Amino acid sequence: MSTRAAPPPHTGSRPGGRSARIRAAVHRAVAELLTDEADELLTIPVVAARAGVHATTVYRRWGSVGELLTDVATSRFSGGIVVPDTGSLREDLERYASDLAKDLNDPDTLPLVRATIGTAGDQGASACTGERRQQIQAMLEREQARGHETPTVERVTDAVIAPLYYRAVFTDQALTPEWTRSLVSHLLPD
Amino acid sequence: MSTRAAPPPHTGSRPGGRSARIRAAVHRAVAELLTDEADELLTIPVVAARAGVHATTVYRRWGSVGELLTDVATSRFSGGIVVPDTGSLREDLERYASDLAKDLNDPDTLPLVRATIGTAGDQGASACTGERRQQIQAMLEREQARGHETPTVERVTDAVIAPLYYRAVFTDQALTPEWTRSLVSHLLPD
Repeated sequence: MSTRAAPPPHTGSRPGGRSARIRAAVHRAVAELLTDEADELLTIPVVAARAGVHATTVYRRWGSVGELLTDVATSRFSGGIVVPDTGSLREDLERYASDLAKDLNDPDTLPLVRATIGTAGDQGASACTGERRQQIQAMLEREQARGHETPTVERVTDAVIAPLYYRAVFTDQALTPEWTRSLVSHLLPD
Repeated sequence: MSTRAAPPPHTGSRPGGRSARIRAAVHRAVAELLTDEADELLTIPVVAARAGVHATTVYRRWGSVGELLTDVATSRFSGGIVVPDTGSLREDLERYASDLAKDLNDPDTLPLVRATIGTAGDQGASACTGERRQQIQAMLEREQARGHETPTVERVTDAVIAPLYYRAVFTDQALTPEWTRSLVSHLLPD
């Protein structure tokens, strides 16, 4: 997403140190393998070979493919997304939905989401939705502080977030800007 | 789902024949392996061993784990779902949404959906949504034939189907009957 900053260094690693370099190489290997045409099974030895590190290093650090994918998805979907603050809930939600649609349209995103859901159970699925709830909550609280009523976080999730993820993951329909905006207008009619 | 009839026999197989027995054993093996506690990697040799058939038989018939899961998901989500016909679009949609929620709440369903999405790409994802579009279309056309305006298939998908799948696949929140009904009331206000 255009508004995502560089991911923060892994907890406990010295930035720029060997640990951070290994993490970056392994994350890059996962992303490459997921978007490869060849439908190779994603296993730890395959990831390690592509990253140029020992498989034991990857096993020791991540334990399983599921945990590795959860880590990649977490840093992909949580780090540094800027929540819009335009002074209007409608405009905040329109920008947020548009950024999310762009992110889900990114050719790297869908294979990562699908593989993480498929391999890492509840934890992986939750990593793919990142900090959506907290971010929506922040936009709603600002609107409430401006003295306006708002829908609940659940309602915004059902009306805006769910259709974006559903269309991206389960259908071959495009997430067009017009359609994305229409989700917000159905939630907040004039 | 309570309204699902027995799956139709695989195209080209004689019902009750060897081919049908193998298919049933392999489908059952996939379902068992997906709900096993042990997080064993789902591979064709593992499925074949559990089904008690030769791995070459499975390879010859399905080709890959992705194609096998797509076949299981297709027969799970397409066969014999009864589309309600109550004479009212609201009640049809409430029943349909409630049946879909029950189906997605079934402990067998979520592991199958996740594994199929994770392994079988676009084809697998589309198998998991089965005939939803055609079924919604059928309910809408009946309402139109009764002389009433209706939302579009896209709108019903965004407002009712997407939140059900999103909540089931991406969150740990329950698909309660009250919440499921509320999706239809938001789509069709009084």
